[in-house]
Amino acid sequence: MLDLKRKINGQRISQRIDELGRISKSSEGVTRLAFTQEFQEGQKLVEKWMIDAGMTVRVDHLNNIIGRYEGMNREAPAILIGSHLDTVIDGGKYDGMLGVISGIEIVSALSESGYRMENPIEVIGFSDEEGVRFHTTFLGSKAIAGTFKEETLYAMDEKGISLRETLKQLGLKPVRYQEAAYHPNDVLCYLELHIEQGPVLEDLGQPVGVVTGIAGASRYTFKITGFAGHAGTVPILLRKDALIGASEFILEIEKLAKENAPIVATVGMLTVNPGASNVIPGEVTGTLDIRDTDINRKERVIKEIFRTAHEICKKRHLTFEYKKVMETAPVLCDQEMKAAIEAAILLNGMNPISLVSGAGHDAMAMADLTKIGMIFVRCKGGISHNPKEFASVEDMEMGTMVLLESIIQLTSNHKNKIKESIR
Amino acid sequence: MLDLKRKINGQRISQRIDELGRISKSSEGVTRLAFTQEFQEGQKLVEKWMIDAGMTVRVDHLNNIIGRYEGMNREAPAILIGSHLDTVIDGGKYDGMLGVISGIEIVSALSESGYRMENPIEVIGFSDEEGVRFHTTFLGSKAIAGTFKEETLYAMDEKGISLRETLKQLGLKPVRYQEAAYHPNDVLCYLELHIEQGPVLEDLGQPVGVVTGIAGASRYTFKITGFAGHAGTVPILLRKDALIGASEFILEIEKLAKENAPIVATVGMLTVNPGASNVIPGEVTGTLDIRDTDINRKERVIKEIFRTAHEICKKRHLTFEYKKVMETAPVLCDQEMKAAIEAAILLNGMNPISLVSGAGHDAMAMADLTKIGMIFVRCKGGISHNPKEFASVEDMEMGTMVLLESIIQLTSNHKNKIKESIR
Repeated sequence: MLDLKRKINGQRISQRIDELGRISKSSEGVTRLAFTQEFQEGQKLVEKWMIDAGMTVRVDHLNNIIGRYEGMNREAPAILIGSHLDTVIDGGKYDGMLGVISGIEIVSALSESGYRMENPIEVIGFSDEEGVRFHTTFLGSKAIAGTFKEETLYAMDEKGISLRETLKQLGLKPVRYQEAAYHPNDVLCYLELHIEQGPVLEDLGQPVGVVTGIAGASRYTFKITGFAGHAGTVPILLRKDALIGASEFILEIEKLAKENAPIVATVGMLTVNPGASNVIPGEVTGTLDIRDTDINRKERVIKEIFRTAHEICKKRHLTFEYKKVMETAPVLCDQEMKAAIEAAILLNGMNPISLVSGAGHDAMAMADLTKIGMIFVRCKGGISHNPKEFASVEDMEMGTMVLLESIIQLTSNHKNKIKESIR
Repeated sequence: MLDLKRKINGQRISQRIDELGRISKSSEGVTRLAFTQEFQEGQKLVEKWMIDAGMTVRVDHLNNIIGRYEGMNREAPAILIGSHLDTVIDGGKYDGMLGVISGIEIVSALSESGYRMENPIEVIGFSDEEGVRFHTTFLGSKAIAGTFKEETLYAMDEKGISLRETLKQLGLKPVRYQEAAYHPNDVLCYLELHIEQGPVLEDLGQPVGVVTGIAGASRYTFKITGFAGHAGTVPILLRKDALIGASEFILEIEKLAKENAPIVATVGMLTVNPGASNVIPGEVTGTLDIRDTDINRKERVIKEIFRTAHEICKKRHLTFEYKKVMETAPVLCDQEMKAAIEAAILLNGMNPISLVSGAGHDAMAMADLTKIGMIFVRCKGGISHNPKEFASVEDMEMGTMVLLESIIQLTSNHKNKIKESIR
């Protein structure tokens, strides 16, 4: 085993992150939206690395790339390792890519050492997790998990080109999207290594952490209506200033979130109408995004937030309306897989920090197919979806070692010992 | 005198308000920007009314229309009554127009009764108070007050047409703008009747009030900088949310304004960046508008507002910057004129309510030429710059009677008694 771990090469991971990151439409950060020319070029590079690592490679009809490294037992269910190859606009080079490149690194370590595991390993580069182009996330992983809906083929990008048309232009057959789906019996589990995209590991001084679950998100729009007026002529006490009401509301949201940590609540958009320097705001619209792995706590806090909003607005002679626009259920990581990752972290000499993922990941979609486990790697300042996104060579190497060790733990749990194979 | 007051005809005022209000580019409210075709059409109508009232009419080179009703003494300094004939986009029909139409009404009452005052009366319809088209206010009144600056002729509208070019197209000679200026010796005082554009008179149940002064305004832009982050991945306690900082700031502004009434302070614009529902606000920019007739109090409150802002931002690890973008000095109404208007209000059986004008008016510019007095008429809900702007026939009639009575008070103060003239 020691030999195998020595083969994990942080420098190679880092070089590949850089090389893949250079394939971008923008010069500022990485812009490689799904199904674009840049994306295809990036996928080609990943294909080459997969082949070099000894994998057989295929691309499914939703444009996911899958490299397979056979197991000792070709019939055994496959261990899936994956993440996405698409980015946001001006994003970073680690988000998604690290999960694919670290998977390839593990297979390289195995093949270079002449090892083969009992189970086949498949490394998947999902085609579209970010959903920037067609405004619908997890396209690739949903297809593999068997939850892709046909109607999604008719989603349009900004130029009015449908996903279906786009896939056809790439030479794929979207009509055969169902063929991308895996049968649950063919899959042992799904593992994803991802940068944290948050500041918790850095704050705790830990390079790697185990994810307990992916928070469910509820998203609302709200509108506070007061009465616009001249900024000079209406005395303070006669005003119905919607922005002041919104300000009080925003501070109450913060207070309630603090009291109910680790729940997070964010007002990310706020629009003031009519929005002139000499006019009292008559209307404010905004968004509220609330995330928690604990559904009951989330529901309780949401109820309290809106109760408070009505109270504030009543007191200020404003009206308050809100509307739910999105809700995703939380996804818990598999307990056995979490234990295996914790063991892997301990075996690598670190303290196994548990944390919640507040962001969505392909693992969420893959949870419909199989049990999932996720490992987070520290990223600088918690910054992601930004050209400044950064993870160190050492941390990426450590994360990949934990990923490898986790697989070993899991397979030995399943009585699937690593056996030397004849190459 | 009783005869004279009986001649003040609220119905005629109201009909003229309606007739002039129908000359509009938009069907929603009134849109009659300065120097447009609609404006010229409206000015023609006012010219007709002035002539009907027995005035001689001229238009100066800044497109102000001036009707003169001779006094018993042609050499005596003129009493100026005025307001503006331009509107904002989709504005109301009372703002400005009432001051001109009520002036014409007074002259009509005089001429119909066969009266002439010792002093000539000039009724002025200013060409551009709102400044919507050339982004510079009080164009007309500044020209008459002698404070118009030549560089303003080169101000551009949205189509890139200069004020100079615009005036020339109307057949005027902008190069002769200085001829529009009055000599102070030729003027006794300036009186303006205007809708309040605020809710104070309505709140107090009074149709008419006397203005003590026009508040000075200070306008600032501010920027609060925090750190953008993923709405799901950054725990509440590790956030640097610029919008939460701004919310605390806005509530503090309200608190300080309440404690220092009648000062008013308004955050009318607020922009959140990056402004996405799943991103923690990293930057907020906004405007702060503060008005008061008391310069010292205003300066003290501004200082306190910004001190508090720095304190809030320091506590929240945010940065705060601000910039002054505008400052106008307050203008106090003349004490003697205020006393005359108060007497006029009392003589009309009402309680003389004093109030500050938080909005700017042509009187501000005219204060550079002569002593000013202003009368406010109640408007519904304090609404202005809006198609819903409304003043009742009774209130407009009452305001006009107060205006007439004020002139009588003022002229008798100046030993200029009304004398019957031979028509």
